[in-house]
Amino acid sequence: MRWARFDQNGTPTYGVVEGDEIIPVRGSPFDMWERTSTRLKLADVKLLVPVIPPTFYAAGLNYAEHVREAAEKIGLKVELPKQADAGYRANNALIAHGENIVIPKDATDQVQYEGELVAVIGRRCRHLTRENALSAVLGFTIGNDVSERTWQKADRTLWRAKNTDTFKPMGPWIETDVKLDDLVTKVRLNGKELIAFPTNHMVFGVVDFLVSMTRYLTLYPGDVLWMGTEGATENMKHGDVCEIEITGIGTLRNPVVRES
Amino acid sequence: MRWARFDQNGTPTYGVVEGDEIIPVRGSPFDMWERTSTRLKLADVKLLVPVIPPTFYAAGLNYAEHVREAAEKIGLKVELPKQADAGYRANNALIAHGENIVIPKDATDQVQYEGELVAVIGRRCRHLTRENALSAVLGFTIGNDVSERTWQKADRTLWRAKNTDTFKPMGPWIETDVKLDDLVTKVRLNGKELIAFPTNHMVFGVVDFLVSMTRYLTLYPGDVLWMGTEGATENMKHGDVCEIEITGIGTLRNPVVRES
Repeated sequence: MRWARFDQNGTPTYGVVEGDEIIPVRGSPFDMWERTSTRLKLADVKLLVPVIPPTFYAAGLNYAEHVREAAEKIGLKVELPKQADAGYRANNALIAHGENIVIPKDATDQVQYEGELVAVIGRRCRHLTRENALSAVLGFTIGNDVSERTWQKADRTLWRAKNTDTFKPMGPWIETDVKLDDLVTKVRLNGKELIAFPTNHMVFGVVDFLVSMTRYLTLYPGDVLWMGTEGATENMKHGDVCEIEITGIGTLRNPVVRES
Repeated sequence: MRWARFDQNGTPTYGVVEGDEIIPVRGSPFDMWERTSTRLKLADVKLLVPVIPPTFYAAGLNYAEHVREAAEKIGLKVELPKQADAGYRANNALIAHGENIVIPKDATDQVQYEGELVAVIGRRCRHLTRENALSAVLGFTIGNDVSERTWQKADRTLWRAKNTDTFKPMGPWIETDVKLDDLVTKVRLNGKELIAFPTNHMVFGVVDFLVSMTRYLTLYPGDVLWMGTEGATENMKHGDVCEIEITGIGTLRNPVVRES
């Protein structure tokens, strides 16, 4: 099942995507819901960020090749993470499928994509086990962890390097029927494929993170966990269009503009 | 004016605190509101966390003496921050005035308080100036940035060191009439005052942070910014009661228990 959140006459509304149509529901996938009798053309609706998370978690460095690339870029020693330590991103930066990534005037040209799998939590949970962890996940969507590399290197935190407004595209929707081992993540810039990698080849997987995190903290419906990206990343410039596809989920597409 | 959020028959409700009474309102201080004709005894209501922030910002190292102490504790070189780089904390960890700080079973005895001023954003804003920045602040409350120092030192992020469930007491309420230069922060453990410092003697002040942050990001009503703490901090153990008082705002009091 595929859950989208869209603008229905000014009201954020959840709907079930079936082919090229969307069926609005009363309620939400995080609670009770029922289908309405309406069917809309998907092409006619404005998709919104599929969920505004109570807490926005990010695995960070979580793929071997990307760890090497990232460490070299910011001048640190290459070292694979030893445990599943999640970091945070910020809701102000979220934009939906189709919306513009806006590069601030004073950013360098080192503004880069990172294509990521996103786990969306479906229920309140603590003390998950390896056996039941995935039952706490409503489904998966796609994130683009846009990053300004000079700020990432220079600042004490990631506040502007990764959380400038519009730097966190997420969508287009949440897919509930996912076999993690079958997924492939592909990043395209202006239609040209720059990387394709097996999505689940992570240093620490979704289950690892959920079990580790919920030893100490409660996850809430709508919390998201971005799982990191693989490989080298390249600069995006004004006029580019960045697409992150994860097979079986969909394609998150965002144009890039530079603030004038 | 003093805004509290409390449990009214199971519904989180805002109210205006006047002396030892609270007057529930319809609406909220972040939107339209009007007083009801009810007056309740403050002592009879269960206070809630005064706001659940869309994004939870924290200044981190922001007082000279604390920077020195913290750097030594986690084995880093003492260096004052050169710019106002905010970090993040997580909503799962929030608890209200009066609720228990729960130390996990496997935490060491290095679980410490940090008494902090908290700015609560009142309206959506971007590109604030030094002149208008404080007009975006609804008021101020108090935070206790509870920290497990061994995890803080060992982990790649602050996810459990500072964001274990119950590690972020915030309250008791939001005070809108505050003169920052007059404030004094006092921390008491079991009634004994351990430190008192001028709240506004920060490396970067509230205005510095708001101006800097909103160059790149939008702040939303209810966002909070914790301003950091001063000086050395001490361990809290099962049975302790930790109080953070900021003169003119109030006192945030939380008992400490260790998970059994």
